[in-house]
Amino acid sequence: MRDAFHDELDAVGAQLVEMAKLSESAITRATRALLEANLSEAEAVITADQHLDALREDLDTRLLHLVARQQPVATDLRMVLTSMRMNDDLERMGDLARHVAKVARRRYPGTAIPEELRPTFASMGQVAAQLVAKAGEVIATHDVAKAMQVEGDDDEMDRLHSTMLRTVLDGRFRPEITTEEAVDLALCGRYYERFADHAVTVAKKVVFIVTGKDADYYLDHVD
Amino acid sequence: MRDAFHDELDAVGAQLVEMAKLSESAITRATRALLEANLSEAEAVITADQHLDALREDLDTRLLHLVARQQPVATDLRMVLTSMRMNDDLERMGDLARHVAKVARRRYPGTAIPEELRPTFASMGQVAAQLVAKAGEVIATHDVAKAMQVEGDDDEMDRLHSTMLRTVLDGRFRPEITTEEAVDLALCGRYYERFADHAVTVAKKVVFIVTGKDADYYLDHVD
Repeated sequence: MRDAFHDELDAVGAQLVEMAKLSESAITRATRALLEANLSEAEAVITADQHLDALREDLDTRLLHLVARQQPVATDLRMVLTSMRMNDDLERMGDLARHVAKVARRRYPGTAIPEELRPTFASMGQVAAQLVAKAGEVIATHDVAKAMQVEGDDDEMDRLHSTMLRTVLDGRFRPEITTEEAVDLALCGRYYERFADHAVTVAKKVVFIVTGKDADYYLDHVD
Repeated sequence: MRDAFHDELDAVGAQLVEMAKLSESAITRATRALLEANLSEAEAVITADQHLDALREDLDTRLLHLVARQQPVATDLRMVLTSMRMNDDLERMGDLARHVAKVARRRYPGTAIPEELRPTFASMGQVAAQLVAKAGEVIATHDVAKAMQVEGDDDEMDRLHSTMLRTVLDGRFRPEITTEEAVDLALCGRYYERFADHAVTVAKKVVFIVTGKDADYYLDHVD
């Protein structure tokens, strides 16, 4: 039988999963706004981020009270403290999606992303959404093996990000790239990369909750 | 007479102050590396960041044990949990200084920053260093009034950052700016801005430790 403390921990996990879904939706919609010069979608992402911020505040207060009231130890304590950090990561991912949406809004009715780079950014949006979806599953299931996959999946984001920057700097395919485009591309690339980094961090934190060891410990010991 | 718990909390505070000093040194040296194309300075910042990472790991473990063993409540609990987050912020500031140093290394023996923008980046480096120095003082003294100033001081970073980006995009003073320069300038600008944001976050967290209220609560109520 579950006690009140563990019921509450389950509710914390459910809220983190919900926040992962909101971040996934945010980055998907922000990518659409960016690629399709969709102003209403950009505005929706920017507005929706306030909800994620409010969820973070609420969860943070609940977690603080949970530690104060229940004085958990061992795995339970690890879970509460690590949830605080995952909460920060997921809220930050919403901010990064909002930054992408703001670039889309700033360039409307134009688009920040030159035609040639749209497929790359579309892929970055998809990978970002997949990473946070998987991080959400990891939070829900505490599946350590899946958590370990997230770091590998992030290599795809790094590859896309490098390809994008190389294409921008190379200048062969589109020598007339403007300074404004270069700035937007550099910043948007950075937002997607950081979004993915936070998804990896969330997954690694679940490994820490379950095992008490950093994910890197296991990655270092994989054959 | 202080008990062992409060002695340990003092030691935590001292380590956070030390980390603020290391971040201050890192951003100051990274700025020098960037502006003077100083490769050894860039390498020094990149290497030194490992020490900051190790300090973070060590402090994080100590804080976890402190909660588990001492089961603090009220202000003491707030201080421990908030110190965990300040630890994350200060470590992240070291990462951001490292990113600046890596741009300097990548462009060596050239420089990433065009002549005309060096004074702006020199100022951004100074403001970043001053912000983290003040955040360190706030950690040491729990001076709420000074903590409130940090957010105001960050306006200067925002101003410098906007001026820099406007100058880059304006194109009047240096129409021949290259795509590579535009990418470097956008990313470096972002690194300084985020460094400053983390300093503000640290200062705000001290307000939360001392008062139990978010700094924004007070800022909203200032006449």
